[in-house]
Amino acid sequence: MRALIALGGNAMTSSTGEATVAAQEAALGTAAERIADLVARGVDVVITHGNGPQVGNLLVKNELAADVVPIVPLDWCGAQTQGTIGYTLTKRLDEAFARRGLDRRSASVVTRALVDADDPGFTTPTKPIGRFLPEAQARRFIAEGQNWQDMGERGWRRVVASPEPREILDAPAVLNLVRAGFVTVAAGGGGIPVVREDGGALLGVEAVIDKDLAAALLGVLVEADVLLIATDVEHAIVGYATPQARPLGTIDVAELTAFAAEGHFAAGSMGPKVEAALRFARSGGRSVITSLDHIVEAVEGRVGTQVTAAPQPAHAEPHQSRP
Amino acid sequence: MRALIALGGNAMTSSTGEATVAAQEAALGTAAERIADLVARGVDVVITHGNGPQVGNLLVKNELAADVVPIVPLDWCGAQTQGTIGYTLTKRLDEAFARRGLDRRSASVVTRALVDADDPGFTTPTKPIGRFLPEAQARRFIAEGQNWQDMGERGWRRVVASPEPREILDAPAVLNLVRAGFVTVAAGGGGIPVVREDGGALLGVEAVIDKDLAAALLGVLVEADVLLIATDVEHAIVGYATPQARPLGTIDVAELTAFAAEGHFAAGSMGPKVEAALRFARSGGRSVITSLDHIVEAVEGRVGTQVTAAPQPAHAEPHQSRP
Repeated sequence: MRALIALGGNAMTSSTGEATVAAQEAALGTAAERIADLVARGVDVVITHGNGPQVGNLLVKNELAADVVPIVPLDWCGAQTQGTIGYTLTKRLDEAFARRGLDRRSASVVTRALVDADDPGFTTPTKPIGRFLPEAQARRFIAEGQNWQDMGERGWRRVVASPEPREILDAPAVLNLVRAGFVTVAAGGGGIPVVREDGGALLGVEAVIDKDLAAALLGVLVEADVLLIATDVEHAIVGYATPQARPLGTIDVAELTAFAAEGHFAAGSMGPKVEAALRFARSGGRSVITSLDHIVEAVEGRVGTQVTAAPQPAHAEPHQSRP
Repeated sequence: MRALIALGGNAMTSSTGEATVAAQEAALGTAAERIADLVARGVDVVITHGNGPQVGNLLVKNELAADVVPIVPLDWCGAQTQGTIGYTLTKRLDEAFARRGLDRRSASVVTRALVDADDPGFTTPTKPIGRFLPEAQARRFIAEGQNWQDMGERGWRRVVASPEPREILDAPAVLNLVRAGFVTVAAGGGGIPVVREDGGALLGVEAVIDKDLAAALLGVLVEADVLLIATDVEHAIVGYATPQARPLGTIDVAELTAFAAEGHFAAGSMGPKVEAALRFARSGGRSVITSLDHIVEAVEGRVGTQVTAAPQPAHAEPHQSRP
């Protein structure tokens, strides 16, 4: 069994969303424990992770030090967070393996993701990043070519493209490592976005790839059986915040696609997770959306929103919370 | 043939030592071209690199943004530079392979290096890092527990431990990748320094490992035949800046050890390169110190300071600049 686990923001920051070094080390340590539990069951694991708060911090540093040291673009910020989160996760994973007497090692691969230069995201950027600023400061960056939008009373915020990941360029290296038994961290923050120019040159772009969509693609490329999207809730919910709210248990692609089309899942949060789960399940795998605490039972098919390509026979349904 | 190439600072910054993104992209692009020439000859390559100016920039950002976003420690700065330099090198390498019609790929591994908690460097730190500051500002960081030293008229500068690398924790992953044909970037900046605590926990430390010493160790672990230390001169020189100055061609370990003991090589520059070359050659490999422009001929044994375990028979000496 091979699982791709996509860690959400709550696996990397404190419960209040703080991204200090101590908060990140503690949260990633907890995630590493749960993953080691899974590895102890004999599951091969590839791990992807978000990086929103971490990139936010790097953008502030860019801004405040701009008069003294060169600023770095968004692709470099992504690369920086792959370094720090990959480093922290591999430290904590190797400790957790050793504590369990497991003869396993982890590894972390700096991962580039190819996007299309003509992705519609580049003409209509929608992904907000970094901190809110007063209009006057935002105008300074707009003059430098960045897109900022008035977000109302909190101020202005930068928006960038969130293009479709077309290819995970480092997937062959990841596949090689996971086949050799390494628990491998890859495609952090959705991968570092690059476009391929006509002459073949790879050019970094100012964009943020959705980490769950990148995870769905990477999951196929590393031949995972299960895509596990770890978030802060145990199930995806239909009718969220209505009296008809129901958690989704085992569900097939057709049924979940219909719920998504009805607008049950919010664009900035559960929406892309459901879309990623659908894509991976359509390719023949099983997807699960659940909380980090439940990843062992979730990979075993016992909890969470379990998304399958085709309807499951009733006796094979381990969890009857399906609406 | 397998080569470990250790890229010096001039492979990553402009000729004036500038570490802007454009300067780094250009310099690493040139390095990637030379490495691709070597790969085209059928050589398997592992690449390590320095990160001094890049870490310097990150420390300034830490300092200037400290009131707004959490500062990150030195091990995290190292991880950040492994991300950005690994990303940039793999982009440029894959382009260079494609342009030559080579069916090869590159990969970059976030790499931890184990050091001893009781390394003498931690009690007597000697490695200067970051920018010079006036005494008053330095005193603020001293109060926070950092070591700063009065460097004379340029001001005060932080000094940290430069401990011996004992183990490259991610070497097995690197070996796996290079065996599978990936040109692999690893142990950037000498590796991210960690100590192993009694209970097995891995703890990042505020230190900088010499990148050439880490390269010598990694070279053995990835079973390299040649350690190539790429710098800005074609040879190591004895009697440097004296009328007796002579470039070293092919030389054996015993002879080079004697020159080193006589103090021919400066502590902060050629000294650690010679020490790294000696260590790798003592383990049975061949070491070369030369400039980035000559790496193909250097790996083939035709230029540079070629360090061998035992004296070479005269007819096997390709380059007669030996004093």
